[in-house]
Amino acid sequence: MTIRKLFEPNSIAVVGASKEPDEIGHKVVRNLQESDFEGKIYPVNPDEEEILGLKCYPSVREAPKKTQLAVIASEPEEVVDAIKECDENNVSNAVVLSGGFGETNDDGKGLEEEVVETGKEMGIRILGPNSQGIVNTENGLCATWPLLNEGGSIGIISESNSIAAELGKRAQEDNIGISKLATFGNKADVDEVDLIEYFGKDDETDIIAVYLERIKNGREFLSVVEEISEEKPILILKGGKSERATEEIKRIEKEGIGDYRIFESACRQTGLTQVENLDELYNICKGIATLPEQEGKNTVIVTNSKGGSVLALDAAQDTEIDMIDLPEKCQERLEEGFPPGISIKNPLNLHRNASAKTYDEAIKILARYKDIQNLVIIVGTPNKEIGEVIEERFDRLPLIPIALGKSEDDVEKPDKLKEKGIPVFSEPETAMKVLDSI
Amino acid sequence: MTIRKLFEPNSIAVVGASKEPDEIGHKVVRNLQESDFEGKIYPVNPDEEEILGLKCYPSVREAPKKTQLAVIASEPEEVVDAIKECDENNVSNAVVLSGGFGETNDDGKGLEEEVVETGKEMGIRILGPNSQGIVNTENGLCATWPLLNEGGSIGIISESNSIAAELGKRAQEDNIGISKLATFGNKADVDEVDLIEYFGKDDETDIIAVYLERIKNGREFLSVVEEISEEKPILILKGGKSERATEEIKRIEKEGIGDYRIFESACRQTGLTQVENLDELYNICKGIATLPEQEGKNTVIVTNSKGGSVLALDAAQDTEIDMIDLPEKCQERLEEGFPPGISIKNPLNLHRNASAKTYDEAIKILARYKDIQNLVIIVGTPNKEIGEVIEERFDRLPLIPIALGKSEDDVEKPDKLKEKGIPVFSEPETAMKVLDSI
Repeated sequence: MTIRKLFEPNSIAVVGASKEPDEIGHKVVRNLQESDFEGKIYPVNPDEEEILGLKCYPSVREAPKKTQLAVIASEPEEVVDAIKECDENNVSNAVVLSGGFGETNDDGKGLEEEVVETGKEMGIRILGPNSQGIVNTENGLCATWPLLNEGGSIGIISESNSIAAELGKRAQEDNIGISKLATFGNKADVDEVDLIEYFGKDDETDIIAVYLERIKNGREFLSVVEEISEEKPILILKGGKSERATEEIKRIEKEGIGDYRIFESACRQTGLTQVENLDELYNICKGIATLPEQEGKNTVIVTNSKGGSVLALDAAQDTEIDMIDLPEKCQERLEEGFPPGISIKNPLNLHRNASAKTYDEAIKILARYKDIQNLVIIVGTPNKEIGEVIEERFDRLPLIPIALGKSEDDVEKPDKLKEKGIPVFSEPETAMKVLDSI
Repeated sequence: MTIRKLFEPNSIAVVGASKEPDEIGHKVVRNLQESDFEGKIYPVNPDEEEILGLKCYPSVREAPKKTQLAVIASEPEEVVDAIKECDENNVSNAVVLSGGFGETNDDGKGLEEEVVETGKEMGIRILGPNSQGIVNTENGLCATWPLLNEGGSIGIISESNSIAAELGKRAQEDNIGISKLATFGNKADVDEVDLIEYFGKDDETDIIAVYLERIKNGREFLSVVEEISEEKPILILKGGKSERATEEIKRIEKEGIGDYRIFESACRQTGLTQVENLDELYNICKGIATLPEQEGKNTVIVTNSKGGSVLALDAAQDTEIDMIDLPEKCQERLEEGFPPGISIKNPLNLHRNASAKTYDEAIKILARYKDIQNLVIIVGTPNKEIGEVIEERFDRLPLIPIALGKSEDDVEKPDKLKEKGIPVFSEPETAMKVLDSI
């Protein structure tokens, strides 16, 4: 059964909608409004006439028919009834935000099983329970607590609500945005296989970022990952490397954790890229989402910071990045154009007070040579117009800007690039990891 | 000969002071004024009457006598004469900001040797040439291009100007500040041994952060590091692990690089802490500078994000961090105080909507047990008052806050903590590295 209406409903009932600003049942209605959801929003609450200016319905059953998605934030013991009402309305998908299920105790676990059973009986696919929501920036569906409304190409799938929110917020703050986001909470029905499959076919999603603790069905998982990773990159951060973390995962759910080494070797068989931590997951996504397509790993550094280039070279060691020698003709062209104080090699270390114009001239020459497939631009001292140079050259070849030690005069420069969706790094090692992984 | 007057002069001559806002000779005068330098500032420029409201002198010789420090930003070929004039004024220390020396070509190298010789003859210790300056926040001496005027306990010593500026700016932006900063540029006279020795004895400096490419005298370096690291932590980021980076360093200076493995093993013999990259250097400094003193590595996690705690547990593996079981009595107290849905163990996973009050109660109980030496507080969902709780409890025991997925409602919370100098991390692995290293 499809999960399409989870992301593409023409109307949403928010069950347990609330007037109380701190309640998730309020935030979801507010965020749907603020992100300009294209469809209809039907708050459901028997005690209210209206919420945030919208007519309130006493139950999903009484909401306009053909409601396609229900976002349920009621008390846990009311969720089963809410799902039954969904059936009476023809709702096909539900997101259960309510907590108090399998993540708490045996009673909660029992309640969760009942929810899943009811969903199955009614033919309603359920994300959750204990999910913290779902986002589709294409149609303004923001049914979660952070307001995520900036469109982009990263699709986020996460077993952890907080990690999804953190990734989504970073992408929003960097003006990179996301395509879709789903947190599956206790993962009682809709799981990683459903979501990776859906994101894989989604035209808006170019990169899939996954945080995963348990894999419900190893064989299915590997098969879907193998298929989808041929079309678009899948990056995965797997929680539960250590015994202690595995214990913590098992406390809530005993199935489907498996041995981390088995997971690792399975990854090697597919096109999945495994990352080590949250920063790496985000930064590589940011790189793929923003940098022009890469032809290969041949790389030249242009810098006015020796220290910055030394750290970048150290970080590039033992990676696939090839810090090539400058093509002979390119070297000649640079020698003609630059004063003798500058050593014409890779890294191309311009004078420490190199102006934006000097950078521009160097980049223009380097960009002509097909053997040079990436440029790493390290800017180490105040340089007012460098932002314009980077912006101008950015579309033509992968160009990774590293800004070190901003001064008061150019403090707004990385922000200006950020506004254009150009990624600026302040850590040479991070930038090299991104370059190696994209 | 002492380098004390580099950091503690009662008056500074800025040779090559300029009216042009983009010139370093202008920025230094402006930054000395803006950071409220306690002593006198004497701009030196034969072509100007005044600069930024200060009387301008035609030469150092003609500046008021007993000028103690000269900051020289003249053309390279004028530097030797400027140093001779310093002697006539009784200046004891000089910072040479001018570039165009050993970092360029053989002519420059010759000029550099002349500068060093002149300094020796005149008895003037020289930082540089090609330095980008010096900072002492205690007396408002900010003779560099970024404005660094926030006092703190981190002392920065760097072979790279940009890396020093980057570290200084991060500390400034996080309201942690620095005590002193020195960039030795070409390191023709004052070197790492002089600076580590001085920072070691400096009461304002509690942590020494070093970026180093070359070690001029291995034996002296090891001996000073051995002595000082008994008193305060020294963190070092060493550029030149890879062959390619070593080549780039050698291009400018052939001596004193040595084999990286020899450096590593030497580090193991002393109390030096080696770090892997710029982020790690900064974050560990931030941790040491801000967290209360640690009694040991026994650690408990308090969280409402399972994913966050899973990543923290994974990152704590293979470190010295000991994720202890809760002391029995503590467990009993928590069981009394919390509803049955919460599993009383380490990590202490509170309900996902846990209020700040719930965190506060948990922290209050945990803080009573001496066996618990660190708390990691992971906040994964919106929680308006958590900042106050962390602030209130912060002084009593090392308490590392990790904030994941800020919502619009608490977007200013980490900033508020930042204002108080409380470090907030958004990466569990980074936070664990800090905890492991402090």
